[in-house]
Amino acid sequence: MTDTTPVILALDSSTTATKAIAFDLEGRTVVEARREYPRHNPRPGWQEQDAEDWWRAAADAIREVTAKLQPSGREVLSLCMTHQRESFVLLDEHDQPIRPAVLWLDTRAGEQIARVGSDQVHALSGKPPSTTPSFYKLIWLAEHEPQAMRAARRVVEVHAYLTHKLTGQWVTSWATADPMAVLDMSSFTYSDALLALTGLTSEQMAELRPPGSIMATVSDAVADDLGLPRDLPVVAGAGDGQSAGLGANVTTASRAYLSLGTSMTMGIHSDQYLYSRAFRTLSSPIAGSYTLEALLSSGGLCIAWFRDRLSGMDPKDGPIEPRLNDLAADVPPGARGVQFLPYLTSAETPYWDADARGAFVGFSDTHGVPELYRAVLEGLALEERLTLKRVEKATGTAVERLVVMGGGTKSALFNQILADALQRPIDVCAEPETTCLGAAILGAAAVGADGVTDVRATASRMSRVSHTVEPQPHLKKLYKKAAKAHQALYPALRKVFPTIAELRESAD
Amino acid sequence: MTDTTPVILALDSSTTATKAIAFDLEGRTVVEARREYPRHNPRPGWQEQDAEDWWRAAADAIREVTAKLQPSGREVLSLCMTHQRESFVLLDEHDQPIRPAVLWLDTRAGEQIARVGSDQVHALSGKPPSTTPSFYKLIWLAEHEPQAMRAARRVVEVHAYLTHKLTGQWVTSWATADPMAVLDMSSFTYSDALLALTGLTSEQMAELRPPGSIMATVSDAVADDLGLPRDLPVVAGAGDGQSAGLGANVTTASRAYLSLGTSMTMGIHSDQYLYSRAFRTLSSPIAGSYTLEALLSSGGLCIAWFRDRLSGMDPKDGPIEPRLNDLAADVPPGARGVQFLPYLTSAETPYWDADARGAFVGFSDTHGVPELYRAVLEGLALEERLTLKRVEKATGTAVERLVVMGGGTKSALFNQILADALQRPIDVCAEPETTCLGAAILGAAAVGADGVTDVRATASRMSRVSHTVEPQPHLKKLYKKAAKAHQALYPALRKVFPTIAELRESAD
Repeated sequence: MTDTTPVILALDSSTTATKAIAFDLEGRTVVEARREYPRHNPRPGWQEQDAEDWWRAAADAIREVTAKLQPSGREVLSLCMTHQRESFVLLDEHDQPIRPAVLWLDTRAGEQIARVGSDQVHALSGKPPSTTPSFYKLIWLAEHEPQAMRAARRVVEVHAYLTHKLTGQWVTSWATADPMAVLDMSSFTYSDALLALTGLTSEQMAELRPPGSIMATVSDAVADDLGLPRDLPVVAGAGDGQSAGLGANVTTASRAYLSLGTSMTMGIHSDQYLYSRAFRTLSSPIAGSYTLEALLSSGGLCIAWFRDRLSGMDPKDGPIEPRLNDLAADVPPGARGVQFLPYLTSAETPYWDADARGAFVGFSDTHGVPELYRAVLEGLALEERLTLKRVEKATGTAVERLVVMGGGTKSALFNQILADALQRPIDVCAEPETTCLGAAILGAAAVGADGVTDVRATASRMSRVSHTVEPQPHLKKLYKKAAKAHQALYPALRKVFPTIAELRESAD
Repeated sequence: MTDTTPVILALDSSTTATKAIAFDLEGRTVVEARREYPRHNPRPGWQEQDAEDWWRAAADAIREVTAKLQPSGREVLSLCMTHQRESFVLLDEHDQPIRPAVLWLDTRAGEQIARVGSDQVHALSGKPPSTTPSFYKLIWLAEHEPQAMRAARRVVEVHAYLTHKLTGQWVTSWATADPMAVLDMSSFTYSDALLALTGLTSEQMAELRPPGSIMATVSDAVADDLGLPRDLPVVAGAGDGQSAGLGANVTTASRAYLSLGTSMTMGIHSDQYLYSRAFRTLSSPIAGSYTLEALLSSGGLCIAWFRDRLSGMDPKDGPIEPRLNDLAADVPPGARGVQFLPYLTSAETPYWDADARGAFVGFSDTHGVPELYRAVLEGLALEERLTLKRVEKATGTAVERLVVMGGGTKSALFNQILADALQRPIDVCAEPETTCLGAAILGAAAVGADGVTDVRATASRMSRVSHTVEPQPHLKKLYKKAAKAHQALYPALRKVFPTIAELRESAD
């Protein structure tokens, strides 16, 4: 018997590709499609894309999904998007890009961050000064490409750009605009003070709507072109990090999510506006509340780096990570004293130190790849333990359990190390596409699918845990000791990193 | 035409084997022989040998050398020994070993070092408290095997044991007994105060003679047995480290030697008795003067460790070290900011920290084996740079050049890194067996071979440099910066090492 229940269309426009997924009302993937696009690197540190690629990929992926859905006759109830945060594009009066879009990864604005970044900017925007926010890159453009900024009729992030393509309206979600760092986060409105520093006015920005609200409907021409129903509601989404948290059903401060991708991010729900160097503060997908997000930009990158550069293993002999996990599993917890500092590209929360880099400390001549790889996994887990402690202190609420998602969850050893180092149960997400699922949850609640309009209730229904990894109580003391050593490493090495950075730069 | 010039017989009774080499009066090897013996490890940290193995190996090696010499009729003028320092044996009234000999490597006396080691012991013996001196192990024996110590008629190091076997006399060199750390180094006599702490008296020790003096002659029975001339003079030698320095012709404070073996040792000549935690003070092979020796116990060990455990290279594809050197040579000086702390087994001069271990600091995701291996070589060189600075400060004399010897000198890259990091010319020893050559120099001068009795003049004649590696002046600034980072690493990490040691020990 063919399933004919309705679906929600979720779109994730990421740094590398757009994925379109039709989810059923229980959060199961029905059909999906994916289209990639390139990234351009015209100068060292510059990271750009063609905004039109975002739309082409989205349109093609949606067309494939609607074509696959057509035989079953399943109805699409709404569309909701998530996306790479902070990336933005300048458009002229004909809504055409003036220059390539500037991505969150782009590091051109180092000087602007140092000069304009401040506690005041942090307090208003919720974002500690760092590489990713659009704010500093807008200042860079105003200083280096003033003619482009003068010609800009609109300055929009990915969600606003695609919403305009779908609906013809210049509206967006405050949970997708806020990572640009030009919002007053206490009120979810554009901050004239922050915009003034970029030379922009709120006239040039998309109108802000609460996440989870219906912003507009798909225009008839677009609906016909993409095979979507006419008048399909387009629901205000959230940036990919927050969306993944909702997809993992993290809607209270007692449960945190941990996304184990190339970066590792920990996210916690907060009903109040809090800001601290220990995290960046974002709009929650649940309108009016917040997501506190701690970033370790080289999380999974450390694992991939070790695998590719130090394991000495050849992928021709089979997948490397399972073999490394087997070796590391034979090393006792504590990695025989070897410690790892996972700042392969820089240190983020709470140190925000661009000079910091990785370290292995404490190896003997009897140690090798097994100890060092276990130290990498434990170093990542101990880093998250520190983060958790800081976030709990800020919210005043104990985190009772964590839910993990992303590629890193495939390693049973890493999940166990996380449970042991954090001494909390680790729920492993069943859905690999948690980010898209978060958008589908917002899309479902917005139209009252299944009769439910509450986002929390919808998340509980649509998000599932595959299994739970319990902490081993007898390792509590050992990991407390390991955390003591780990916590001391960065403060010990901080003063050496600037000289190391000079040596690194003199070699370039 | 057969060479019929006379030879000097040098013997090196090391930790793994005895080597006998007949050198001509120009310091060239004429014939050689080698016999290995085992090491016993009955408990963790215990390192023992059968003293009788020392003699069996020496006798067999001498027999092979005299047999090889016989056809040419070349005369043996004298015999001089060098040896593994600090290893000792207890003998009963029949000169039989009471228990296995205890080696310099043995770590059983940690508690005794912590309890009895002091500035006073250092000031008298010239040896900062550390694992190697016999002194602490004698105290351990007095406490744990009192019956063995009571039964001991003699307590002797390797040189004394073998001298007695050759000559029937209980005499030895003060340059071979002093590493035991029971001598008053200002007078080269046994210290009653130090001996008293072990429960021994000078009656039980071999009589001390100046290095380079004729102690006795080989007994007739032994001479006949080994194919040596009757009445062959046996010359008082020096411990292997000091002997190697003489073999490298280091007889003034302006030229240092650097021995690149499993350990790296730097040695400097001093006419005065000086002591400092930056070095240990030994009797020079030149009687009445001193050798200041700074030890990095894991020197070449770091290179072997990286090769065997982290290079990812298979020896079946050819020798690994040349391939690693090729990779590291393509990395610019400064190793792209990667720093290495070479304390794989512990830190010696000047920190004497048994908890300290290795560290890599400052790597990025773009770094791998080439950067890390270059960091190992630079870390070793920068460690020697620090040592040199400290030793120069103590002696008040500038070291103008260094002479390197040992296995590590085979790497042209390492020699160049040493020259650049130390900004001094590096003379590479021609003779691979510098340790034995030092004994031959003492043996030659003692009998006035070639009419010369001055040890310095004899060393200048018999020791040769293969080539000199000049420092590159344009790298002076860069290595100054690298040294700044390197120098900061141990002080930064010192407080973390005790916790790391606890984690390491909890895993054992």
